[in-house]
Amino acid sequence: MKKAIGHTVWAIAEGYIPPFSTGPAPEFTSHETACILNTSEEDAQVNIWIYFSDRDPIGPYKVTVPAKRTKHVRFNDLKDPEPIPTGTDYSSVIESDRPVVVQHSRLDSRQAENALLSTIAFPVTT
Amino acid sequence: MKKAIGHTVWAIAEGYIPPFSTGPAPEFTSHETACILNTSEEDAQVNIWIYFSDRDPIGPYKVTVPAKRTKHVRFNDLKDPEPIPTGTDYSSVIESDRPVVVQHSRLDSRQAENALLSTIAFPVTT
Amino acid sequence: MKKAIGHTVWAIAEGYIPPFSTGPAPEFTSHETACILNTSEEDAQVNIWIYFSDRDPIGPYKVTVPAKRTKHVRFNDLKDPEPIPTGTDYSSVIESDRPVVVQHSRLDSRQAENALLSTIAFPVTT
Amino acid sequence: MKKAIGHTVWAIAEGYIPPFSTGPAPEFTSHETACILNTSEEDAQVNIWIYFSDRDPIGPYKVTVPAKRTKHVRFNDLKDPEPIPTGTDYSSVIESDRPVVVQHSRLDSRQAENALLSTIAFPVTT
Repeated sequence: MKKAIGHTVWAIAEGYIPPFSTGPAPEFTSHETACILNTSEEDAQVNIWIYFSDRDPIGPYKVTVPAKRTKHVRFNDLKDPEPIPTGTDYSSVIESDRPVVVQHSRLDSRQAENALLSTIAFPVTT
Repeated sequence: MKKAIGHTVWAIAEGYIPPFSTGPAPEFTSHETACILNTSEEDAQVNIWIYFSDRDPIGPYKVTVPAKRTKHVRFNDLKDPEPIPTGTDYSSVIESDRPVVVQHSRLDSRQAENALLSTIAFPVTT
Repeated sequence: MKKAIGHTVWAIAEGYIPPFSTGPAPEFTSHETACILNTSEEDAQVNIWIYFSDRDPIGPYKVTVPAKRTKHVRFNDLKDPEPIPTGTDYSSVIESDRPVVVQHSRLDSRQAENALLSTIAFPVTT
Repeated sequence: MKKAIGHTVWAIAEGYIPPFSTGPAPEFTSHETACILNTSEEDAQVNIWIYFSDRDPIGPYKVTVPAKRTKHVRFNDLKDPEPIPTGTDYSSVIESDRPVVVQHSRLDSRQAENALLSTIAFPVTT
């Protein structure tokens, strides 16, 4: 698989980091993830923008996904330019300088038993 | 991200608001959501139509998603022209005057522990 | 929304009806569903084919989705030409004489607390 | 359905085999699955590549999906060239010599009650 697979822009309309958790960290910490796969031979420079319901978007959060690697980016871990507030509705747009593939997941451990969701992100045709 | 991302028509074939809930409202109220992201520089006027198994569609439910904002629309909260009955199979079609991105989610808290689902909606090529 | 939305062939690669359930029927009976939305002005005649890991496909299961209606078809309820066995891996192909939109869901209630999954089906370009 | 449906390359950006389980094996063993549907009249030879965050991809894992059959491949069961470690982030790329349809699922039974996720994989246009 030499060829780069995917798109350079993706959108995830759902976004919500549950504000609390049950169980040992970090496995059972409530979190949202953007899984980003870079099959190409060169590193991908990725910019993530966060959109809110009541204020201007923030970003870019800068992430490097090395050549032939995957990175499961926890939105909880994004700190610069500012942490993403928990318990808040948001959406994200992911821009890469190389084609990548993006999937969205959430682990919600607010209660004793986990709940999971996942979906392919929306590939934007540019 | 200046360009408007997405499609102007989306469909969600699954729809069901669980008729009861466990846990404190509103976080743990069983609900269905259409997350709508508008990355454009202008407000999006969105019309939502609800399809049923045994009667004519109802709508439009009118929602504005402001420029560069996301709105996570709970189907439970739609009241005009009429509330969507709980415990009832439905589908939805979402029409916007500007391109948007739509994702569908459900939190089912009928039992003590939550269950979640989510998927990208179906982008209609018009 | 006068125009028919969607595709005439869809595929769902995942399929598994959990063989037992917890809680009152039918809401909490473990089930798999193909939600089929027909926005057109005419009834859709739908044929469903079931593929297995170890024997020839069976079908067609015939379903009518009336004009401007949705039908959430439980695979558990398909009986003709034969019931779909529970606890068995399968896939499905859904063919319609008019464009429809298809989404796949499962409620798994084998344990005390439910689990849910859902995804847009794969729209086939014919 | 004589025609082969789908794509010859698919990507799944999310991947994580939960490292432990609750409940009887194999139904309640935590697992990740790639459901692969081959509607064509001839067997599909499938190569699966696994991408990691911190080392080179491994593969190909070779799987045959017979003509007009589905195969629900548990990543847990892939052994050659080497087992996929549990508790580790990965992604996968699935290449087939015939068009197939791929869907991704996970059963997480680390806790007493199961959680499920599923999504259509990303169909690569080659």
